[in-house]
Formats: sequence, structure tokens, C-alpha cells
Amino acid sequence: METSADQSFTDTPDPDAVVEQPEAQISEWEDRARRTAADLDNLRKRYARDLERERAAERWKVAGAWLPMLDNLELALAHANEEADPLVAGVRAIRDQAVQVLEQLGYPRHSEVGVPFSPHMHEVVSVVDRPDLPPGTVVEVLRPGYGENGQQLRPATVIVSRREG
Amino acid sequence: METSADQSFTDTPDPDAVVEQPEAQISEWEDRARRTAADLDNLRKRYARDLERERAAERWKVAGAWLPMLDNLELALAHANEEADPLVAGVRAIRDQAVQVLEQLGYPRHSEVGVPFSPHMHEVVSVVDRPDLPPGTVVEVLRPGYGENGQQLRPATVIVSRREG
Repeated sequence: METSADQSFTDTPDPDAVVEQPEAQISEWEDRARRTAADLDNLRKRYARDLERERAAERWKVAGAWLPMLDNLELALAHANEEADPLVAGVRAIRDQAVQVLEQLGYPRHSEVGVPFSPHMHEVVSVVDRPDLPPGTVVEVLRPGYGENGQQLRPATVIVSRREG
Repeated sequence: METSADQSFTDTPDPDAVVEQPEAQISEWEDRARRTAADLDNLRKRYARDLERERAAERWKVAGAWLPMLDNLELALAHANEEADPLVAGVRAIRDQAVQVLEQLGYPRHSEVGVPFSPHMHEVVSVVDRPDLPPGTVVEVLRPGYGENGQQLRPATVIVSRREG
């Protein structure tokens, strides 16, 4: 059997232990055995949670590494004038494909306008007077957000209507 | 202290245990404590390995999800004629960015020609007569490969020179 590296065992045999009463020794080892078994049990439970958390963290990191590329695809499309250019159609299809990949990974795109501002979903870079809209309404999305709640790559960058008319 | 759910403790107290010699009881509990501590130690080591394996599996899955997009970027570039088109330059830069992201994730691009065929790195789709080259040389890369050894997204799809001249 492999020797345990647990610190609590390195100090045995204790020179005082030989004069201990047998009952005390039984109780001491029994207590140690039960505590270690409880640790083992807790470790098993914790592990299942850790595993899923690590997977989610890796997914977040790797998916996020592709976001600058997607942003650049969008910028390239925003500056493309020639609608008849087959390359524009191709790049648009690739952009859609990228958005779909992110959605399948659990990070759906958010670029809705006309919705109320939410601190979890939006990062406000500018405020405009829009008396025709309720205050705090998303007027324009400058950069889409991806994901939501506990699983968010980034909030959408938006312009909202002024809160105080 | 939390009660352990470990099966080995559910049968205690054993009615026979009360007539056991104290020395036998000490030895029994000590043995149990040491075995449980060894189990705990082994489990910790196994979990550390498992976590790294799970992270690598998730990285592989998420990085691989983006490969079709990168392939389509390359196809779009292959069909683009207008070198002066700023969109072509933009798309090329995005392709390079994607290749760099994959390399940083641990999957460097492989599209070398003139190298000897390797079953780990290449998937042969065609063989050509090339008396000027050593047999089994990569003549053309139809689709680049990414990664190598234990960390490979996919092998390169290649054409090689015939083995028997």
C-alpha cells in the first residue's frame, strides 16, 4: 500500500503514545479514521463541482479569444460598399457562422435596440436626448454583446436615451 | 463534524467488537485511518490529472468549433481576385489573426510542402508522379493542419509524391 503523504501521520510513532491508555489510542485512531473518511467524501462532492467550473472557465477563455476576429469581420463588412462583390456575401456568411458557433457554445449574440437598459447586459458609452423614447432605452448598439447571466463573454456597448428628459 | 457516507463505517458499532482485545481494536482503527488517508491522497492526485485533461478536452472542442469558419475565410480569399480591394486585405488580416489565436491556444498551423509524409501530421488524398522528388514527399497542401502530437485539431490534407517511382 502506498504511504500517505498526509502531514498528520509524519509525527507518529509519538514517544508519548506508548504510555497512553489503550482506550485513548482506540479513540484517537477512530477519530482520525472518521475525519479522513469525511474529507474523502467532501473531496468527491467538491470535485464534481470543480470539474464543471473548470470546463466553463476554459470554454469562456477559448471562445473569448475569437471575439476580436468576429469584431473585425463586422468592421470589414461595415466598410464594404460593393454589395455585388461576392467576397462581401462570403464574409457575411462567415460572420453569421461565427455568431452561430458562439450561440452553440452558450453565448448568444445581443444587439437589440429599443429595449430597456440593463446593467448586466449593457455598457453605456453615450447618452442622447430622445424625448420620443422612454428614458434609459437602448438607442443604438455599437458593439454586440455575447452571452448572459452567469455565462457572458461581454456586455453590449450601447447608446441610451437620457434618463432625465 | 459531517458524518461520513463511506460504506465501511455503516456496519459499526460491530457487536463483536466489544469482546475484541484493545490491541486488535487499535490496530484495526489505525489500519483503517491509514488506508483512508492513502485513498484521499491518491484521489487528490487523480483529480489534479483529471482537471487538466478536462480543460484540454474543452479547449480542443471549442477551438475546433471555429475551424470551419477559418476554412471558409481561406476559401473566400482563394477566390478573391481584386488585390486592390481593401476588403481582401481586411479579410487576409482576419485570417492571420485566426491562425494566431489557434497557435496561442496550442494548435500551430501546418502547411509545409517539401517535407516527408508523416502519418501523424498528414492525411493523403492524392498521389502524383514526381520523379524529381524523393518518394513520399508532400507536394501540395489542400487544407492546413492545426496542432501536433497529443494536441492536434486535425492533420493537414495533402498530395504526396508516389512511393514507387
